[in-house]
Amino acid sequence: MPRYAFTIEYNGQPFSGWQRQPDQPSIQGAIETALSKIDKTAPLLSAAGRTDAGVHAYGQVAHVDMATDWDPFRLSEALNFHLKPDPIAITACARVADDWHARFSAVERNYIYRLINRRAPLVHDAGLAWRVQKPLDTAAMRAGAVHLIGTHDFTTFRSTMCQSKSPLKTLDEITITENPTPTGPEIAIAVRARSFLHNQVRSIVGTLERVGSGGWQPEDVKAALDAKDRAACGPVAPPDGLYLSRVVYNPDVFA
Amino acid sequence: MPRYAFTIEYNGQPFSGWQRQPDQPSIQGAIETALSKIDKTAPLLSAAGRTDAGVHAYGQVAHVDMATDWDPFRLSEALNFHLKPDPIAITACARVADDWHARFSAVERNYIYRLINRRAPLVHDAGLAWRVQKPLDTAAMRAGAVHLIGTHDFTTFRSTMCQSKSPLKTLDEITITENPTPTGPEIAIAVRARSFLHNQVRSIVGTLERVGSGGWQPEDVKAALDAKDRAACGPVAPPDGLYLSRVVYNPDVFA
Repeated sequence: MPRYAFTIEYNGQPFSGWQRQPDQPSIQGAIETALSKIDKTAPLLSAAGRTDAGVHAYGQVAHVDMATDWDPFRLSEALNFHLKPDPIAITACARVADDWHARFSAVERNYIYRLINRRAPLVHDAGLAWRVQKPLDTAAMRAGAVHLIGTHDFTTFRSTMCQSKSPLKTLDEITITENPTPTGPEIAIAVRARSFLHNQVRSIVGTLERVGSGGWQPEDVKAALDAKDRAACGPVAPPDGLYLSRVVYNPDVFA
Repeated sequence: MPRYAFTIEYNGQPFSGWQRQPDQPSIQGAIETALSKIDKTAPLLSAAGRTDAGVHAYGQVAHVDMATDWDPFRLSEALNFHLKPDPIAITACARVADDWHARFSAVERNYIYRLINRRAPLVHDAGLAWRVQKPLDTAAMRAGAVHLIGTHDFTTFRSTMCQSKSPLKTLDEITITENPTPTGPEIAIAVRARSFLHNQVRSIVGTLERVGSGGWQPEDVKAALDAKDRAACGPVAPPDGLYLSRVVYNPDVFA
């Protein structure tokens, strides 16, 4: 059974999340339905990370074992054909070794969270970014974010539903950039780590928004982290602005 | 009757265009319906320019005469409330003089056309950009665009339905920029003029795409312009990528 890896882009709005669920539209379910149209064995997908309802991807990665050999480009074209009109696209496909695994072979995960700082409701980016009405001080947000870099007990910043055995994670990078756009100032928060806890990025973003809008001081982020208490977290940011942007493998199987 | 000017952002996908039409959803109709909820005289809008079905705006401008005095900020908030859930937002509002006119007072109009150069179907920008599968040579596109700058007879580049008396227009600027994005290289074509002919921007973009993908040489744009013949035009670009981005007034009533 030859194994293939996919890079996948999706708009999470119409889905209950990545994971296949009975009677609910899911990204995994949509792609597996497309796979079943071209492979009678109905191959199952394994993803680098499960995304929640309403969360998007520029670069989710998943693998599948097919019954027959496929040219990777033709496989991606066939899937994109059968995925229409769902907002899901296969943007890269590669043949990988039988022991390569989208989740366990990943060495780094990157997320981007998009905030648009404006008063009016979002139009072009409705559901695709978080509208924040209060002006955000990105310098204060950066000063708050510094406290989260490195290896910490992230109990404050993980969902009570998180199934990870340990709350210890190493956050390698948080980069906060501000770009003017035709629809208002956009603030992008990019985070990088080997792996994340459930709701960790949205918990961090919700807390940094609190700092940017002046409700918290940058030092309050350190106090929240040190508390190791979920109740010390700022509000969890909505799924709208969150994108799984890139999963890194060594070597890069899509190169 | 106090007059107010609005800056308006919209996603053109669900609408038959700007202009009010019986039994068809339109942007003008949606805003006039919202106005009728707050003003019993059911005020009518006049816009800087009518956009076609599927065309978007970052900065359409329109004016209206209200029965009573409004604080401009409260007027925009009330309209945004009544416009939900349509993808239309009032992003600025100003009181203007009784002889100020969104169309006739405008001294410059700016459009942006977004192309995304990639093979896979668009996901996040479906309906919001033109996907072009062949790699585009932006240097060639710029060399072709040069021929269109200045005052010309744009008969080749206007719809046969265009109601303008003269095909003579002055194109002040065409700027073509390429930006890497998480979803592929994006090419933005920004055009600026006092006014445009019907379908002029989409005709220019469709022709420049032909140059960028290698089917035409840059000099062929000059030959097409000189032909003064609609049949000499390249294919008209789809509405998806077109945005009325800014209308300029002197003085700037929104400043």
